[in-house]
Amino acid sequence: MKIGIIGLGLMGGSFAKAVKRYGIASKVYGFTNSQKNRKEIEELGLVDELVDLNTLKDICDVIILSIPVDAIISMFPSFIDIKKDTTIIDMGSTKEYIIKNIPPQIRENFIAAHPMTGTEKSGPKAAIDNLYEGKTVVFCDLEANANKHVNRAFKIFQEIGMRIVVMDSHEHDINACYISHLPHIISFSLANTVMSHQNPKEIIALAAGGFKDMSRIAKSSPIMWKDIFKQNRQNLLESIKSFENQLSCAKKMIENEDYEELEEWMKKANTLHEIL
Amino acid sequence: MKIGIIGLGLMGGSFAKAVKRYGIASKVYGFTNSQKNRKEIEELGLVDELVDLNTLKDICDVIILSIPVDAIISMFPSFIDIKKDTTIIDMGSTKEYIIKNIPPQIRENFIAAHPMTGTEKSGPKAAIDNLYEGKTVVFCDLEANANKHVNRAFKIFQEIGMRIVVMDSHEHDINACYISHLPHIISFSLANTVMSHQNPKEIIALAAGGFKDMSRIAKSSPIMWKDIFKQNRQNLLESIKSFENQLSCAKKMIENEDYEELEEWMKKANTLHEIL
Repeated sequence: MKIGIIGLGLMGGSFAKAVKRYGIASKVYGFTNSQKNRKEIEELGLVDELVDLNTLKDICDVIILSIPVDAIISMFPSFIDIKKDTTIIDMGSTKEYIIKNIPPQIRENFIAAHPMTGTEKSGPKAAIDNLYEGKTVVFCDLEANANKHVNRAFKIFQEIGMRIVVMDSHEHDINACYISHLPHIISFSLANTVMSHQNPKEIIALAAGGFKDMSRIAKSSPIMWKDIFKQNRQNLLESIKSFENQLSCAKKMIENEDYEELEEWMKKANTLHEIL
Repeated sequence: MKIGIIGLGLMGGSFAKAVKRYGIASKVYGFTNSQKNRKEIEELGLVDELVDLNTLKDICDVIILSIPVDAIISMFPSFIDIKKDTTIIDMGSTKEYIIKNIPPQIRENFIAAHPMTGTEKSGPKAAIDNLYEGKTVVFCDLEANANKHVNRAFKIFQEIGMRIVVMDSHEHDINACYISHLPHIISFSLANTVMSHQNPKEIIALAAGGFKDMSRIAKSSPIMWKDIFKQNRQNLLESIKSFENQLSCAKKMIENEDYEELEEWMKKANTLHEIL
């Protein structure tokens, strides 16, 4: 099987490493628009060959889109003439808006996936071994896909060690919002709270595990996340409101010195870890 | 040197392990009020001997208070008659309120410290090796202490591998608020946002590194944190407001679809990691 990967940053680059490692692809091709990334991809040896888009479309059995979610949509017109046999898989963090915009000509062979994994880093140098192993990949709205493409996608993601979950795209976007998009907005907000303080350096001199964990994802790529926030705007706004209510509730208990009630509220938070 | 530790949970238990490991104490004594903890401490062999409070006061050169911050204050009367030679060190997460309440009779030998380390776990079983190594300990308002006690405290914390920072207690409480207390309130709020959703299990099925990091400290002890929030109430309320402003700013940019401005805001958050 020949696999082509469009975008070879953290997700695409690590995917290239995974399919090579498990011997899934006889050859891995790559395509990138960025001159800077091209050089890094070659130096790191992430793919067997970097090719132009038409070559990639012609020779690959499977094409992976690991680019920002808005770029996925911009690329749709380039795939309209693709062979019916070619499986296209996008790995974007939002699914409903992407699926809504898939051109009907490629709906059967376009698989919408979201691997629930990542780090705060980006670019080809961020690619790592084992990014996917043991993690969950969500596939959405597969009823619109031809079986052979679904099976091919399942096989690849299963072979790189992922746990497969299928979900309606609307439901996916709500769940991904609470589990990933909202935590990113919170982490960015926490980082900016400290950076807007008069003495960020003095504060940060005391940073230990808790703060490092809470601010890690505030290092994530603004370009990538801007597009995700745009595409999942409605869910994100609702989840922010729901988080604001919880925080405001805690603030009121502290203002009113209702410490027993605050303790109960924290005990409820503790229960998350019974199911996590 | 004989070291007595009052409270042998995560902090005290790990401290017992550290002073033993580095051969700092000829003997480590412990005191606890909890029958349940007493059994665990003995089974784990955290200290050489569990003794009553008067024995501990009589025979130890150094007494460590690793109990919730309100319990530290409740214990003050028990130390009024202690020998001038005995060093008492509290390891509470708040410093200004504790220091304000130290009885004048023991002010010279009472060292206010805050080791910037921990995990979300609590109790004797949470005690681990290496909790302190390579971490920072803050000492506050040392000008009120006799030199021999300061030197003794410095020596112990340095020998278990900690980096020493001295700071005014007022300043400490503000910095500790932003770096630790605010992140805890945020993490509890995030956990409760998900737990209040109609399908927490479905959301959590997608949890990856980001969410796990952001919700880890929401597992922390409500009893311990209630007291910290109480003692650092004013700073905490201010820091929550400042965080709410950042979040509300992000929300407005998303509502108004000001994505370029949102990108700039995230870029500012990224700069945290230039100094962290």
